Amino acid sequence: MDTRTGLPVVGMVGGGQLARMTHQAAIALGQSLRVLATDPDDGAAIVAADVHLGQPTDLEALRRFAKGCDVVTFDHEHVPGDHIRALAAAGETVYPSADALLYAQDKLAMRRRLAELGIAVPRWRAVSTADELDEFAAGDYPIILKTVRGGYDGRGVFVIEAPEEAAGQLATGEPVLLEEKLTLRRELAVQLARSPFGQVAVYPVVETVQADGVCVEVLAPAPGLDEQTAVEIQQLAIRIATELDVVGLLAVELFETDRGILVNELAMRPHNSGHWSIEGARTSQFEQHLRAVLDYPLGACELAAPAVVMANVLAAETTAQPLDERLHHLFAAVPDVKVHLYGKRTRPGRKIGHVTALGTELAEVRDRAARAATLLREGTTH
Amino acid sequence: MDTRTGLPVVGMVGGGQLARMTHQAAIALGQSLRVLATDPDDGAAIVAADVHLGQPTDLEALRRFAKGCDVVTFDHEHVPGDHIRALAAAGETVYPSADALLYAQDKLAMRRRLAELGIAVPRWRAVSTADELDEFAAGDYPIILKTVRGGYDGRGVFVIEAPEEAAGQLATGEPVLLEEKLTLRRELAVQLARSPFGQVAVYPVVETVQADGVCVEVLAPAPGLDEQTAVEIQQLAIRIATELDVVGLLAVELFETDRGILVNELAMRPHNSGHWSIEGARTSQFEQHLRAVLDYPLGACELAAPAVVMANVLAAETTAQPLDERLHHLFAAVPDVKVHLYGKRTRPGRKIGHVTALGTELAEVRDRAARAATLLREGTTH
Repeated sequence: MDTRTGLPVVGMVGGGQLARMTHQAAIALGQSLRVLATDPDDGAAIVAADVHLGQPTDLEALRRFAKGCDVVTFDHEHVPGDHIRALAAAGETVYPSADALLYAQDKLAMRRRLAELGIAVPRWRAVSTADELDEFAAGDYPIILKTVRGGYDGRGVFVIEAPEEAAGQLATGEPVLLEEKLTLRRELAVQLARSPFGQVAVYPVVETVQADGVCVEVLAPAPGLDEQTAVEIQQLAIRIATELDVVGLLAVELFETDRGILVNELAMRPHNSGHWSIEGARTSQFEQHLRAVLDYPLGACELAAPAVVMANVLAAETTAQPLDERLHHLFAAVPDVKVHLYGKRTRPGRKIGHVTALGTELAEVRDRAARAATLLREGTTH
Repeated sequence: MDTRTGLPVVGMVGGGQLARMTHQAAIALGQSLRVLATDPDDGAAIVAADVHLGQPTDLEALRRFAKGCDVVTFDHEHVPGDHIRALAAAGETVYPSADALLYAQDKLAMRRRLAELGIAVPRWRAVSTADELDEFAAGDYPIILKTVRGGYDGRGVFVIEAPEEAAGQLATGEPVLLEEKLTLRRELAVQLARSPFGQVAVYPVVETVQADGVCVEVLAPAPGLDEQTAVEIQQLAIRIATELDVVGLLAVELFETDRGILVNELAMRPHNSGHWSIEGARTSQFEQHLRAVLDYPLGACELAAPAVVMANVLAAETTAQPLDERLHHLFAAVPDVKVHLYGKRTRPGRKIGHVTALGTELAEVRDRAARAATLLREGTTH
């Protein structure tokens, strides 16, 4: 409890853009997010008032950080489960719990658990040898190889065209799993928040558009998705959240295939597939996560406009103009998109921000968001 | 320029809720607002990363604060004009300028200037003696007495029912002016932003509802206002901003009377009459102020919903529940209003936050906002 305000203190481990945007949401709720950053120049650290420095793998740093927090939560999956258990054993409130977060940290545990629950997933197998890989592929390449831990934004995911391409990864001894390479109609995602009380609030199902394994665009709601499938997907997410006892946000990434809807990945934190909600839903995912982990009643998830498009801004290799000038061009050209910059140093390919457009006609809204993202990424060529 | 991000640094003098909400907007723009607070527990100081302590009347503190800022701006009117001139003479960029801000600081200067411009205002007169007061009133009480400087939120404004009621105020020697007590149909307000380049972006005209001289509710757009009058009011505001060379936000508070629209007050900063814009307009007043003082192209001002209502939350004398519990009740009862808490210690009558509701039917939206504000102010009586 913050004695200055009589309101709770939420601590978030990790100082990236998710913590940065959660701090914005915390301000409206009368709070000030406590951030555990690894670098004083982290995106959240340079905007928050209550910043601690420390590694997410350092239990003593986590213990010091948690002191005085009403709840500790995460902007990434890098805190070891045993550390979370140690905090909980010491009486700290941590959401999601170690037992729940495991399924967002460990793809093998997640696949096994979802299989137990009878939830449709791609065909998969844990492997450690070339023989096992050959057996899984049965001559039918390409297949997908994923590291069990540490993957995100396309990292830790490899398309294997021939057995020898997996040799290096298998030689590391790091646990990996294989998945069939599916022909996707498209990728979808659904996000919900669940409170310790058990209240659940689900956002509309969205379409996520990927390029080179990285999400570049999110369309809310997923265009052309029939109402019944949308409801089934929402129910699936509720079932997963309830079975895994998730508290806070859960993002379920999905494949839409000829075999139906398959679960790809889980995340238990604010997620890129939900950035559209800042302006596009009545309650943003960041506010919702705070409400969930604090056991406040959850906010309304309704869309604020018929069509909402979020486009990520990945830094270009080179640009003719500095970021501030590109922002001028964007604002001049597209006065009605919303810009979110993450306060990061620019490095090619790095997500430096996103833009969100709202409107009534998806094609127009999508074009507007893409135009804004391009201007912010590349500037103009006049 | 912030060398970590390549983006500008805006410094805001004053650490209240306006700076607090401006910091939220700055985060999205990739910035971190620099705040000059008088107390480390000020609402903005407890959420911002870049906080300086100092009085707005201390020129040396202002000079230190301005170093490294790309632009200095204000969350109140308390910085003396000569200090602003001294900063500008030293090469600092300050918006609004001292010459413009004067008309928001000094009601007499404002009335004189608007009169010169032929803009309709209430009948008024500067007075310093009881004889002058008698002469102005001509036996027709009540009249309104206003201090020339320092008034806001109903402070510095007195309804004078009989000459002797003004004696105390006149005896202070502080400059005052008198105004006729008008029969108002209602109060309106219009807000715009103007950039150094001269671009202007105007928000829809809103109705402001007062109780005991304090704004309690803002209805956007002003219900039942005919299109032509709305445009005339917007044009009036543009004319004032251009004539006074305002940079940043300008709020024009208006009386709707049988004699037409009269200008009551001016403010040159984010203003309570524009809080609805955080969710209710495509570009919030806080983002717009930053864009204006930085000479970025301005954002779209369109309404995000047909009816938007902002209700202030003034702390109650006593409450059965602490703030955090009242927030629980509010969230449970009204899941689709947006809450903004200012991080202030509760003191009866103090504005501790506001709520905003959006929808299609004004009566329903207004009821929802009022219900939320009451729950946040008083809690439940179960």
